[in-house]
Amino acid sequence: MAAYKYQMNIRNILPATLRNFPDQEIVYQDQKRFTFKEFYDRVGRIGNALVNLGVKPGDKVAVLDWDTNHYMESYYAVPMIGAVLHTVNIRYPPELIFYTMQHAEDKYVIIRDEFVPIIEKAAQLFDFIKGWIIYSDKNEEVKTILTPNYNYEDLLSSSEPIDFPDLDENTQATIFYTSGTTGLPKGVTFSHRNLVLHATALAMAVHKEPLYVTDKDVFMSLVPMFHVHSWGLPYVTMITGNKYVLPGRYDVKKILELIKNEHVSLSLMVPSILYMILTHPDVENYGKYLEGWKVVIGGAALPKGLAKMAEKYGINTIGGYGLSETCPVLTIALFTDKIKKMRDEERFEYKISTGIPIPFVNIRVVDSLDKDVPWDNNTIGEIVVRAPWLTGEYYKDPEKTEQLWKNGWLHTGDLAVVDSLGYIHIVDREKDAVKSGGEFIPSLLLENIVSEIPEVGEVALVGKPDPKWGERPILFVTTKKPITKEKIYEHLNRYIETGRVQKWWLPDDVIFIDSMPKTSTGKIDKKELRKNL
Amino acid sequence: MAAYKYQMNIRNILPATLRNFPDQEIVYQDQKRFTFKEFYDRVGRIGNALVNLGVKPGDKVAVLDWDTNHYMESYYAVPMIGAVLHTVNIRYPPELIFYTMQHAEDKYVIIRDEFVPIIEKAAQLFDFIKGWIIYSDKNEEVKTILTPNYNYEDLLSSSEPIDFPDLDENTQATIFYTSGTTGLPKGVTFSHRNLVLHATALAMAVHKEPLYVTDKDVFMSLVPMFHVHSWGLPYVTMITGNKYVLPGRYDVKKILELIKNEHVSLSLMVPSILYMILTHPDVENYGKYLEGWKVVIGGAALPKGLAKMAEKYGINTIGGYGLSETCPVLTIALFTDKIKKMRDEERFEYKISTGIPIPFVNIRVVDSLDKDVPWDNNTIGEIVVRAPWLTGEYYKDPEKTEQLWKNGWLHTGDLAVVDSLGYIHIVDREKDAVKSGGEFIPSLLLENIVSEIPEVGEVALVGKPDPKWGERPILFVTTKKPITKEKIYEHLNRYIETGRVQKWWLPDDVIFIDSMPKTSTGKIDKKELRKNL
Repeated sequence: MAAYKYQMNIRNILPATLRNFPDQEIVYQDQKRFTFKEFYDRVGRIGNALVNLGVKPGDKVAVLDWDTNHYMESYYAVPMIGAVLHTVNIRYPPELIFYTMQHAEDKYVIIRDEFVPIIEKAAQLFDFIKGWIIYSDKNEEVKTILTPNYNYEDLLSSSEPIDFPDLDENTQATIFYTSGTTGLPKGVTFSHRNLVLHATALAMAVHKEPLYVTDKDVFMSLVPMFHVHSWGLPYVTMITGNKYVLPGRYDVKKILELIKNEHVSLSLMVPSILYMILTHPDVENYGKYLEGWKVVIGGAALPKGLAKMAEKYGINTIGGYGLSETCPVLTIALFTDKIKKMRDEERFEYKISTGIPIPFVNIRVVDSLDKDVPWDNNTIGEIVVRAPWLTGEYYKDPEKTEQLWKNGWLHTGDLAVVDSLGYIHIVDREKDAVKSGGEFIPSLLLENIVSEIPEVGEVALVGKPDPKWGERPILFVTTKKPITKEKIYEHLNRYIETGRVQKWWLPDDVIFIDSMPKTSTGKIDKKELRKNL
Repeated sequence: MAAYKYQMNIRNILPATLRNFPDQEIVYQDQKRFTFKEFYDRVGRIGNALVNLGVKPGDKVAVLDWDTNHYMESYYAVPMIGAVLHTVNIRYPPELIFYTMQHAEDKYVIIRDEFVPIIEKAAQLFDFIKGWIIYSDKNEEVKTILTPNYNYEDLLSSSEPIDFPDLDENTQATIFYTSGTTGLPKGVTFSHRNLVLHATALAMAVHKEPLYVTDKDVFMSLVPMFHVHSWGLPYVTMITGNKYVLPGRYDVKKILELIKNEHVSLSLMVPSILYMILTHPDVENYGKYLEGWKVVIGGAALPKGLAKMAEKYGINTIGGYGLSETCPVLTIALFTDKIKKMRDEERFEYKISTGIPIPFVNIRVVDSLDKDVPWDNNTIGEIVVRAPWLTGEYYKDPEKTEQLWKNGWLHTGDLAVVDSLGYIHIVDREKDAVKSGGEFIPSLLLENIVSEIPEVGEVALVGKPDPKWGERPILFVTTKKPITKEKIYEHLNRYIETGRVQKWWLPDDVIFIDSMPKTSTGKIDKKELRKNL
């Protein structure tokens, strides 16, 4: 009889949590509440139902939904029966939804009623799907031409909880597609081990200053569940035992109500969601409930102006960084001892930076010869990384996989500098970078500076083709109050005087627009902006 | 080019910590201080020196030392070159030291000057050792007949830091011997993965109430480094980035000075060490520095009387549990929501219990048919467990390994009950259990009750062979102030009235002794006590 070989699979993280925190809650909007124990019972039942429907180990099961308890159940039940959870990007146009589902070779689909019509429009294309498992919040029968179809709640209530298998930790658990701004979406895949170790490291990181998460904190991720595992928070919560709130479809008013009623204290999001919340007409009424809210911002840099806006409500915003290929979290702008000793204003600059690696992450900023750049806050290099939770591949794309993993380091395509304290500051996405006269212009630095102007809303610097310089920068701006171009240049000129901005970085033009085009994951779509140049 | 396969080995946990906390400190007594960066430089140099001496992957390297910076360096350097660290129990009599080193097949020895004479007495027995690496705090030449011998500091200073290999995470990292109270010591082995995942789970657990460890906490383990990895704290600190204090040879006065001067706030120890500290004549002078000290007690149950004594100084004692075979930590008496809502006195009972599993630990209390006992605080079963860091074997003992891993669960040999909230309460070691008339008498419960009497020091219940009942209980007691047997029976009788103690559990006799015999790891030696019956 050999010793038991413990696998770091999703199943094995649950017994301690279910035993210690059976009554902890998972809350879906103002509609439903489940204890962890009830949640796990439902996970077991739907898991069994999927097996009985014919879902086999390795089969891809797609989910189309907002952030609901059903989605959270799929996060567990699908990988735990050995199938692969495909979190479909519901913000994609229908043809890309079809493309990714076909490319992933999905076999079954778990789908919310309101997404059924989108699929029905091209139902014949989806003949490779063996079963549609449908639900609605109202738990009504959903009429559809999609066949064969099943009602999620009926399946669940007519099944006994399954005894989940003890899977090899390297079993694939998830797949999703990156919303790359060029070319077709690329699939990235993650194993049970990836997800568990990512959640573990994140759980350790959020305990540190200035987040200081404790077991009293209430989590609500505002990164959609279809996107990079909602930054792993739905898995973190089942390790740490924290209360978890699911906001459904994002609606700022409902989000504010949930923060108030459920005492949400830790959230993750892209900057534009925070911007939406802070510019909502009702936000003033929720002032006292926002006080102390801890918000980690990733997906795009945290503009200083936005962080200052949040600070007025007592919201504690902290920079973070990761990408679809990395599960995603790599860094958080946590404080080291030296930062703690700084004055508030100085500390603020670090808090909105890309930050420092969370446990187990080996991160470097390297030049084109893969040598580390000096920590001089000036020399730009590419971020490369090793961690226990990075994707092993672009699905069915060995060529791009090889580029991604050049020299055994995952190449992020993000350009950054490192300051003397080791804090990383991203200056640009490689593909968004503005290169003028052979040199990079740090878009994010300029965007940050302009975002400080009170009248300014969102900002984006993009490169316009130029016969002499290759590219020249153009600044797009939305405004909260009227402001002239001259005022913006005046503000920038002040930074030229201090030496932080170089004269040749100044945009050739400032273009005011009503709103920023966004990608399907809520980031500013620079590709779209460039089209207008 | 394939993706990099990240191994959970000791090397890979360091880059993030060294990058984020290069100036954090490791302090050895009042003698030396190293930043993490300096520490790692030394680890790299001694690692290189060992390789150059001829240490090969898989070679066992024994260490004989108190809790010093040299020991801490070995904790890293030896496993990181692919060798196996044998933490020799220096409290063993010389013949057992020889037995374990021969059984482990040690090839090299890192040894502190004061242990050299012990080995020299039987130098000819140690002809299997290929090299003795010696140091003294004074950094003087140590004269010895042991050959070949080398000076640790000379080796270190004449070597460049090694670029440590990226080992498979399942590579064996450590071996040590359990101080079993019956038979010869048994060797238990642990891999890099075991150590890293154990430290990770412990890092997550100590953030919870009532420990609430943050990055401001200063760690000092008072579990000797030769024993169960000092409960993993020397590895935890290099994941979390906390300051670490090494007390050298345990001396209560020096320990109190370190708590005062280095602001130690988290420690781990067996009850007898805490007892030694609290009964030291100078303890009153350190009152204000003990306030808020967080102490996790394991290795033996935390007696209520001792916890109350500690409480008077504002020391926060918390029960924990693990064994040599389990790396060691399995449970800590952390608070769940229900406990948090209790009155202080009620909460106290939970705080001194065996507690609840830390993350990833799947723990059960089972009857002889391996079925879970009911959570009735009454039915006694054996604790069995699965976790990512349990020993895979008793070294070179397949028979005992098979018993240990019966049915794929590690059988701890500890008897416990589970209360309605899921908290585990150990009632006895199986081998120490008193069985009377075919039924167990819960020694720990009775010991706990008697420990509450202010005059009582340490307490131990053991079984005396009895022709009629098989065994009958006898109570051994040390006293702080004079007390009569009658007073002790009076106190116990009060619990009979409340129904918590059954009449037939009452000891047949109470024997006063001057001091308790201790095992080499500081636990009360019941085998020794039984000899006197």
